[in-house]
Order: sequence, then C-alpha cells, then structure tokens
Amino acid sequence: MKNGEAASGWGIRQSEALCDTPHLRLDREFVATPSRPAGISWLVVHRRAAVVVAPRTPDGAYLLIRQERVAVRRELWEFPAGQIDGEVNEGTIRETALRELGEETGRECRGELTPLGYFFSSPGFTDECAHLFLATEVVPRAEGCAHDEHESILEVGKFSPRQWSDLIAQGEIVDANTLAVFARLQARGIFS
Amino acid sequence: MKNGEAASGWGIRQSEALCDTPHLRLDREFVATPSRPAGISWLVVHRRAAVVVAPRTPDGAYLLIRQERVAVRRELWEFPAGQIDGEVNEGTIRETALRELGEETGRECRGELTPLGYFFSSPGFTDECAHLFLATEVVPRAEGCAHDEHESILEVGKFSPRQWSDLIAQGEIVDANTLAVFARLQARGIFS
Repeated sequence: MKNGEAASGWGIRQSEALCDTPHLRLDREFVATPSRPAGISWLVVHRRAAVVVAPRTPDGAYLLIRQERVAVRRELWEFPAGQIDGEVNEGTIRETALRELGEETGRECRGELTPLGYFFSSPGFTDECAHLFLATEVVPRAEGCAHDEHESILEVGKFSPRQWSDLIAQGEIVDANTLAVFARLQARGIFS
Repeated sequence: MKNGEAASGWGIRQSEALCDTPHLRLDREFVATPSRPAGISWLVVHRRAAVVVAPRTPDGAYLLIRQERVAVRRELWEFPAGQIDGEVNEGTIRETALRELGEETGRECRGELTPLGYFFSSPGFTDECAHLFLATEVVPRAEGCAHDEHESILEVGKFSPRQWSDLIAQGEIVDANTLAVFARLQARGIFS
C-alpha cells in the first residue's frame, strides 16, 4: 500500500486483467475504499487520458467537427479530442490539445489555451478522464488538417454561441466532451 | 442487414465477443459506415443504457449525492443515476428515473419529471447512453433511502443553483452525468 492510499482510505488489493488491448484494458479489481476497508470487487475499464479543445474564432464563433462514431453508429457534432500518448503532465496535456486542434480542424491557436479542468466520462466503470480547454483566436493553419487513418471526420462547422447552445437545447449535441465544455464555460461565465 | 442500416449506411458485418460479463461486454466489431462502406474494425464496450435525474426541491435547490466511485478511486458529488433493467422504452426509462431518485436520495417527485434528452458518455469506445431528467417538487418519502449493496452513497447534499454552478466552475463537479444535465438545463433556459 502506498502512503497516499493509506491516508486516503483507497487502495488496490488485487487486480486481474480480463482483457488487454492497445486501446483499453479490462481489469477485475479488489479495492479498499474509505467506507469499505475490507474491500469490494469491481470491473474497471482503463483508458488513456484524453484532451478536448473548444476552438473559438476571432469573431467569437465555435468550431465543431462532424465525426463518425463507430461505437454508437452515428455521426456526431463534437469538439476535437484525442488521447494523450505516454506520460500525462501539464506539458503533454497542452501538446495534445494543440495537436488535436491542428489535425482535426486544420486550425491553430493564436490566442490563449485556457484550461477548464477535467471530467470523468463514466466513473461507474472506467477511469477515463478528459482534460478540457478553450482555445481562442483560432485561425486556419498552412498545412490544413491531418486526419488519423482510423478517424472519419466529415466536416468542420462554425457555430455562433447561440447556435451551439440551441443544438444542445434541441438534443443535437449528444457527446459528453462537448456538453462538459459547455457546462464549464457557462459556469465560469466565459461562454461568449 | 436491416433496412434501417442499409438506408443509413451503417451496418455491422462481424462481431466477436472478447469478454462478456454481467456489467459490460467487450466486442471486436467490423462495421460499415457511410464513409467506409468496406468496413472498419473497432473495439466496443457495450453497456446498458442509464438514467440520470436532477432532483429539484420546492424551494429551488438541487440535491446531489456523494458517492464512492471505485473506478476512479474518488468520492464524487453527482446526481442519482442507474441502469435500465430489461427493455428500454419511455416507460422503463421514467420508472428507472423515479426508482433511482427514491433509492439514492430517499425522496420522491411530487411535480414534473421533465426529459432533457440523452447523451453518450464516451462514443469513441462505448455505446453507453444516459437519459436525463429534471424532477421538480422533490420531497422526502416515507421509506427513506434503499441503497444497493454495491453502492456506497455517503450523503445527500442540497445546493442552490448558484452553489451548484460554483462547484462546476471550480472543477469540484467532475462526472459527465451531472455536467450534461447542467448543460441541457442552461441551454434550455430552465436552470433556475
């Protein structure tokens, strides 16, 4: 048991990998918790941390990408996002944000890259965590997009804050990343 | 191929279960998409659909539960939520919302149960979908809470809209369910 775990009451006692792939690992874990020091058995899907970036243009609009999502058999409007390769630290998180912005929208950030905290996509079964950013003064870059061969990004769309908000109200924006960014921007009073 | 799939361009060609458990199933799928009619291989975690309910009290406050989440080794403030047993339809979705409200907060809804649409928690790797509701005129029920033996709900907290918004701004609310509800309430102009 690590010291931090002892102090907090959390500690992993046993772990068995049920399935290990390059994209995720499914473990059966036996974990002590503050309210269950004897431990509880849980299935956990481990995923690399992700980064989501909300690109804002000089005229105050937001850029969303339309992407095919195989797991839900749908094309979704969402913000550029991607997983962090290797170690997760402030540097790699920001690098990933700028890389995904460039590759998925063909734009670059000439203003600020403002952190909006992080969130857990589904803490009932996965440790997946996404770090959120607002990128301002986003403009086209010389090299354009550079899509990953496994991604199917169909288009980049430009939406006023009002249009984006209306898409959320109407249930047209349905991915956690994009809703989480909207929540943080609204709560911080920097939506528009 | 079903007619709907043929019309939309989406269709599953092959599926192999890599791991099957009562809580989730991990499949390697080969799926045709509108932009890739020849198909693409993808790992998909299948989960039952969930329901999330935002309980609002007669004086306009929101109730959040403090819950231990084993997968992220954290106690989180979040809205009551649970998975739908059996068939997913309007009836079972609403039943699940009212059941989770009762079991996890010990309260019942004397007002309206207003649907706020659904969202996907992480469409890059799972089909998990959560249906969102606002429950109004929420008051204590005679039988109190009825916690599931696998859950560790530590307390029920009452927050004004401003307090809840501040927790989001400060990064203290970090689960997708609760952020998604906040986004939909804000976008629809029914936050408070």
